[in-house]
Amino acid sequence: MSTRPGRPGYDLEQVLLVAARAFTERGYEGTSMQDLAGRLGITKSAIYHHVSGKEELLRLATDRALDGLSEVTAEAVAMDGKAIDRLEHAVRRSVEVLIDDLPYVALLLRLRGNTPAEKRAIARRREIDHAIGDLVAQAEAEGDVRPDVDPAVTARLLFGMVNSLVEWYRPRQSGAAEIADAVCKIAFDGLRQPRRTGRRAHPS
Amino acid sequence: MSTRPGRPGYDLEQVLLVAARAFTERGYEGTSMQDLAGRLGITKSAIYHHVSGKEELLRLATDRALDGLSEVTAEAVAMDGKAIDRLEHAVRRSVEVLIDDLPYVALLLRLRGNTPAEKRAIARRREIDHAIGDLVAQAEAEGDVRPDVDPAVTARLLFGMVNSLVEWYRPRQSGAAEIADAVCKIAFDGLRQPRRTGRRAHPS
Repeated sequence: MSTRPGRPGYDLEQVLLVAARAFTERGYEGTSMQDLAGRLGITKSAIYHHVSGKEELLRLATDRALDGLSEVTAEAVAMDGKAIDRLEHAVRRSVEVLIDDLPYVALLLRLRGNTPAEKRAIARRREIDHAIGDLVAQAEAEGDVRPDVDPAVTARLLFGMVNSLVEWYRPRQSGAAEIADAVCKIAFDGLRQPRRTGRRAHPS
Repeated sequence: MSTRPGRPGYDLEQVLLVAARAFTERGYEGTSMQDLAGRLGITKSAIYHHVSGKEELLRLATDRALDGLSEVTAEAVAMDGKAIDRLEHAVRRSVEVLIDDLPYVALLLRLRGNTPAEKRAIARRREIDHAIGDLVAQAEAEGDVRPDVDPAVTARLLFGMVNSLVEWYRPRQSGAAEIADAVCKIAFDGLRQPRRTGRRAHPS
């Protein structure tokens, strides 16, 4: 199961990227090692030079997304401060992970299957979802999140917004920081233009 | 190309539902008429009793979603009133369509392919996205949507939230009206608990 060093022509990084895209488009079960070899224009044995098989490819590809997302969630959970600020940190950093590792997060979000490799990735994803749900509930208990929406629904909608990036984000249009700002403004404060008394006439 | 009336055992409705789920899980191109016959436990010719082929199945299944979404968008565009209220109408009614026709909207949102049948559905979806983008831009021009986020990004994030329903909505947990309320509260006013002066001590 060890991952061998790459060799000239295709390195593991390129094989993983092609595998992630193929699994996303055709499903993990619907993609054979032969399909991957075809897409890469190499032989199956050249792929086995890098990995032990399809299951290891899925594990490495989904871990790319899961390691990043777990890390930013753990950061947010461990931080000092109010839960709503920690939640905002998790959202902001998750947007960065999504943009950095977009093909791997797209694969993760599409997994539905029942093979052990898929189940393992889905279980890791569920742990992250639970940690986010807990942060929302805590922020509500601290009086910082509106109490008139179920915290579980709030968490789903918040990350529904974040995760939609994999469908529409194009790197040329805007950077990660700009998108993270947009997500936080809309999710936390709403898209409605606030009309407050005492507001400056020309907000910067 | 005409759709023939159903016959005892399986009606067109059931065939469509199974086809939509199969196309969503395995991709349109990755699903054969033989696969569908297998899932339904009937012969291929029994499916051809209902439709002319796989392309008609995709058209009927995606039209189920597109007709509903086009209708609610056209309603919102044609309504009198401010663009932000018309946008809220579109969001609220789209949530209802998503929940009513969930397997068909899920299929529509997953389509990526390059066959003419898929391209046609994606083009119809794009028209709806443009109409929503125009409503957001209009609401911003009317001063009701925050001007510090690109209207196109706002529209994407708003419907990213709405469309996420196909991933997590479970009918037993909450009804369409309750979810539509949650989406509108969070998307328009944000998940942050507002702290306004002069607010009643015990809001209902």
